[in-house]
Formats: sequence, C-alpha cells, structure tokens
Amino acid sequence: MSIKVAPEGTITSPKGFLAGATYIGLKKLGDEPLDLGILYSEAPCIAAGVFTANKVKAAPVLLCQRNLKGNNAQAIVINSGCANACTGEQGMKHAEQTAVQAAKKLGLSPQLVLVASTGVIGKQLPIKQVRDGIKKVKLSPDGGHTLAKAIMTTDTFPKEIAVHVKLGNGEQITIGGIAKGAGMIHPNMATLLCFLTTDAAISPVFLKKALKNAVDASFNMITVDGDTSTNDSAIILANGLAKNKLINSGSPGAERFEQALREVCLYLAKSIARDGEGATKLIQVTVEGALTLAQARSGARAIAGSSLVKSAVHGSDPNWGRIIAALGRSGIEMQETRVDLYLDNLCMMKAGQPLPLDKKKAKSILDRAGVPIRVCLNLGSASATAWGCDLSEEYVAINSEYTT
Amino acid sequence: MSIKVAPEGTITSPKGFLAGATYIGLKKLGDEPLDLGILYSEAPCIAAGVFTANKVKAAPVLLCQRNLKGNNAQAIVINSGCANACTGEQGMKHAEQTAVQAAKKLGLSPQLVLVASTGVIGKQLPIKQVRDGIKKVKLSPDGGHTLAKAIMTTDTFPKEIAVHVKLGNGEQITIGGIAKGAGMIHPNMATLLCFLTTDAAISPVFLKKALKNAVDASFNMITVDGDTSTNDSAIILANGLAKNKLINSGSPGAERFEQALREVCLYLAKSIARDGEGATKLIQVTVEGALTLAQARSGARAIAGSSLVKSAVHGSDPNWGRIIAALGRSGIEMQETRVDLYLDNLCMMKAGQPLPLDKKKAKSILDRAGVPIRVCLNLGSASATAWGCDLSEEYVAINSEYTT
Repeated sequence: MSIKVAPEGTITSPKGFLAGATYIGLKKLGDEPLDLGILYSEAPCIAAGVFTANKVKAAPVLLCQRNLKGNNAQAIVINSGCANACTGEQGMKHAEQTAVQAAKKLGLSPQLVLVASTGVIGKQLPIKQVRDGIKKVKLSPDGGHTLAKAIMTTDTFPKEIAVHVKLGNGEQITIGGIAKGAGMIHPNMATLLCFLTTDAAISPVFLKKALKNAVDASFNMITVDGDTSTNDSAIILANGLAKNKLINSGSPGAERFEQALREVCLYLAKSIARDGEGATKLIQVTVEGALTLAQARSGARAIAGSSLVKSAVHGSDPNWGRIIAALGRSGIEMQETRVDLYLDNLCMMKAGQPLPLDKKKAKSILDRAGVPIRVCLNLGSASATAWGCDLSEEYVAINSEYTT
Repeated sequence: MSIKVAPEGTITSPKGFLAGATYIGLKKLGDEPLDLGILYSEAPCIAAGVFTANKVKAAPVLLCQRNLKGNNAQAIVINSGCANACTGEQGMKHAEQTAVQAAKKLGLSPQLVLVASTGVIGKQLPIKQVRDGIKKVKLSPDGGHTLAKAIMTTDTFPKEIAVHVKLGNGEQITIGGIAKGAGMIHPNMATLLCFLTTDAAISPVFLKKALKNAVDASFNMITVDGDTSTNDSAIILANGLAKNKLINSGSPGAERFEQALREVCLYLAKSIARDGEGATKLIQVTVEGALTLAQARSGARAIAGSSLVKSAVHGSDPNWGRIIAALGRSGIEMQETRVDLYLDNLCMMKAGQPLPLDKKKAKSILDRAGVPIRVCLNLGSASATAWGCDLSEEYVAINSEYTT
C-alpha cells in the first residue's frame, strides 16, 4: 500500500506549512479557548476550493471565490464563533480587512490570503479584535493541532489527519487536513470547513479536479441535519516543496494522489458525521445495484438523512420500513419487488417481501457505534455510500439554545 | 360569508354518510381503543383521491388508485397500527380481502370499497382480525367522531371539521373531513390520511381538480419531519344528496365549493402541523414577492422544514440567520440584497442587511403558540404559506421507540 497514515498527522505535516491560533472572544470562554487561526505556507501555492451551493453565500466565501480565480494562495485566516454571513457590504469589508491585515503580517499580497468563518449567521465580525488577534497569532510547523481546535464550533473533538504517499521513483509527498462540523451538515456541502495542504508539485487544473472528485465522494455524502450552510468551504493549498515531478492528469503519480486525497477527505467527512450534534452512532448507508452513480448517491443520502431512520437507529428500534420509505421518496429509479435490505448481514426484506424479523439480532446491530445499512436495488451496477448519525434528544437541546 | 363552520362538525355531517369503528388489537391497548373503522354513504358517490408521491406505495394505495379509475366509490375501510406497506403480494391480497369483506357487509360491489392503512411498515395485516372487525363495526350517522379517533396513530387529538356552504338559489351543501398525522409528514404529501365527504352533486372531473388544488395549498404545504410516507391518501366522496344543481367547472357554485374545500383541507392540515410529533408550537412561514407560486411554495417549505429553524423556534432562540440559510438552500431565485425578514412584524433583516436585534421582543414572538415568519423576496408578486412545527426532544423520544 503506497498510502500511509501519519501518526499525529495534521495540516502542518506536509513540508513548509505553519499554523497557529489565538482567542479573541468570539466563542464563549471554555477551557483552552481558541477562535482565530492562520494557516501559512513558506512557499507560494497552487490553490483550489469548493464552496457552498447555498444561494446565500457568506462574505468570506465570496472573497475566496474571487481570490482563487488565479489558482494561487499562500495563507488562510479562519475564525469560529461568527459566520460573517447575511452581513451585507459591511461583512464584505470585514472579510477584506481580515485578508489585508494577515497579508501585512506575512508580507504577502492580500490577493494571496483566503478567509473562512463559521458560527452564528447575521452578526458582524468585531473587526478590531480580529485585526489585533491576527497580530498575536504565533505560527509554527507543529501548529496544526492548535488550528484544528480553533476552527471547532459545536464539534466535540478536533478532526485532523495526514498521509504520506509514495509516488514511485522514490518520490514521497504528504497530504494533511483538518475539518470542522458539526451541525447544518448536508450535501452540498455542509457547515463544513475543510482545509487541506500538500507539499506535492501539482498542476492547478488537476488539483481542482482531484479536489472536486474527493469532495463529491466524501463531504457531499455526509448528512447531519439536512441544512446546507452559507459558509461551506473546502480549500487545498499545494506548495510543491516535496520537489516531485509535477503531477498532472495521466502522469504516473496522478491516480495515487487522487486516491490519497479521497482517503483524507473520507476520514475527515466520517469524523464529522460521527461527531454530528448530539450523535451517539455513525450510520453508514450503502446503495448497490443502482442504474447510475448519481442515483446510488441520492438514495444513500436520503436514507442517511431521514429523521425517522435516524431516530430509530438512536433507539435501536428495528423499524426498517422507514429505510424503504426514505428510499422511495428519494425519487431514484427502483422496483419494490427487486429490493433487498440488510442491516449488516441480516436480511430484513428480500425482493420486496418482508422476512421474519429476528428482533434480538437486529437490535444488537443497531446497538453498535457504527450501524451498516445496505440496500440492493438489483437494477444496475452503480453503488455509493453515505454517512450520517443518529438523531438524539441532545441535538435538539444543542440547537434550541445556540445563540442564547 | 357563505361558508360556515359547523359546530361539532365531522365527516358524517354531510347528508347520508355513516361511520363507525372497533378495536382489533393492532394498536397498543389504551383508553377507548379503536383501530379499524368504516365510512359509508347511503347513496352511490362520485369519488376522487390524491396519493403519495413515494415510489414505494402501500398495498391499500395501489388498491385505491385502481378502484378510483371509474370515479366511483361508496365506502372506505381504514385501519391504524399497521401500514400494510412493504408487504409484497400477500399485502395486496390482504387489502383486497378487506374490501371484499366490507362489500359483503354493505351489499356493495368490492370495486366500490376503498381501503386505507397507517402504522408500522413491513408488517402483514392480521387479516382474520380485520375481517372479524369489519363484521363488528356499527355504522351510525354520528359515527364520524369515532372514526376520527380510530385513524389516529401518534396524534394527540382527533382532527375533524365540517362546513356548510350556501351555493346561491337557496341551495346548501355540506363538506366534512377527518385527518390524521403526526409523523412522516412532508410534502408531497405526508403520513397523512384525510377523508372528505360532501353531499354536493358535482361532476367527477371538477371534483378531482378541486381536490388536487385544495391538497396542493394545504397538505402539500405542511411538514413535520421531511419524510414522505408510503401511505398518504386524501380521498373525497360526493353523494349528491343535497340535490343541488350539478357543480361543474364555471357553474355558479363552483368557486364557492372550491374555496370551502380548501378551507376544510387547510384547517385539517394546520391541525396536523400543530400536532406534529413532540410539537409545542405551530410555525407559519410566508414567502412573498417570489417570481412564481412554485418558488414561493418551495422557499416557504424549506424554511418550515429546516431542523435548525425548528430547533431554534423550540428554544425561542432568535437565531434568524438559519431562516435565511434555509431559504438559500431551497434553490429558488433570490437576491440576498433584496431580502427582508420578519418575525411577525419585527424586522430582523432589511435588504440583506442585519438590523440591530431586539432580543426581548424577538423572544416574546418565538414564545407564542403560533410563530409567524415572513420573508419578502422583493422580486415578483407570488406568495405562499407553509406550516410546520418546532422540533423537540419529545420528537426523538417518540421516534426512537416506535415499534419497541
């Protein structure tokens, strides 16, 4: 296997990336409070991003989309506790001022600085605190862990990973990443901030395509609550310091790079689903035998996103009819009389007929920390997997007093 | 006003309709248990129905769609506690045997009997009990209340209404209806069974159109949890015993009939939203100034259906950014800089700019039993209203142990 997970790996594991964070009072004061961080590459980077499909886009999203037109960036400023969304012209100015302040600190053109925010919508950023905070942030090559903590909102644990990838010819590159969830998570995409780094030398066109594909198979296949955020951003910076031969479409290392990037994104996406607000279980839904990949994905996401399925999994209630009902309302092609349904390897329905229910065995599967649901449509050969979490009383408790 | 709500009105308020119910052990034994009921008209009826958009349709839905091809029906057998969905060929036989048994009791052709079921999916109907139960049901002209109770599942109160309508020329007709929710409620349509009766003489084509329009403006505008059921059915029987001049498209009473039918459906739909599983508040979302009616409806439903909006309303948290985020992900045409947002008459956002938040006033609106949310898109002239309910811990508690 040419992809190796780096123990303790994070976003600063690839060569030449530094990070750090500080506290400026945006989040409630907890233990070890952090709410403003910076990611910086010592060398100029090729950059690409994928952003929210919501028509209401936060100011930092608009700024990133503009600055990424040239496919270059060298730093990202990220704050949690305030989304800077629905903030009008003032919000846009604040995002720009944030980039300018960081550019001054780092000696960069402001066009090379990206900005990302997450938190409450409809509140203006306290720009003075942001500017002062940027001055205070200390960057270091092992600052990735700190940055992973600084971007958290209702997340209960930081999400970070790095992998080392052998490209052949003795070349090795590293990909690192951090992400945050944990509510307003739904394709496309999620209240999700994901930042990725690599020291690979890579073409901008290929990097953009690889990121899009990785996001489609990972972050766009998780759902926590059906709400798509105004701030979703997945951004990758590639600084080329690994000195490998440029990766391009069709080049020897291309496939390996894509696979590794997908693995990193999948790991982070599953961590987000597992850490969904109030979640106690990870639900994995695979739809097989669909006519197309798009249909397999739609079906899997509809099941993983059903409040009724999620509630039943929470209580380990083998109420499997809800799974079929969710599949049916997804609108994908299906014939009820061909559908098989499994909880792990326990068949609940075969060719549209209910089988006698082994309640005890079903319950034991539903009691697991990871609940595998599998639907075979028996129509075609496409398959896809989606991840979600159970719906608990805790989700409601968290979200009924988020701003109060 | 030519439409008058009948005090104590129900599905047997129109002339010539009888109903009754009994208990056959499908639901858990509570106080006054009822789970099998029959609606019957003394005279032959014109009939129409609207059914679930779910690709997985319960056996009774398929039977109704087949029997309604001739636009005639004279009785409906309804059970709660078992959906007879995902039950294969055996399930279809059970639905047919149910109709045959009722036809025998009532001296009708089985083609004139409709069947509806609600409850757990994937379990076979205990057909012997159903047959014995049908024999036991006593029909009476004031049996509507009993039938309204018999169709309930997790509903906490029966939903029933009747209105008297003056058509002009001294003619008066009556429309009655009953419905049940209360989970798996989402357009199109809901786990919703709705049965309507009228003594109006009416053409089948016009009746079908009037029912479709009324359902679109009512049951298709409520959402409880985003799940569309396998069993949704809204059925109307019209027996003509009011002896009015036949209502047809363009005839003098046509508009009045349509309006009255819509009022009946709106009343029942709002009752379902208010009684959503675990709900403590009714949320009313109006989207104004949309380019088209379809877009206004989509926007209103997306907001009413957002788990984050519903949770915030539950906790009276004025986290209004979630409303705009839900609107943005609905996919309808909008320009953020034109959008105004109101909680009742309190403006939260004007032309895309957040206004200073009067937390106390916002909270007092959110504390009401009915919470009015209004969005002005300022793009066109179409508007629509959707209804939903808050998301409470109780919803999860109900749905995590539904079958256990």
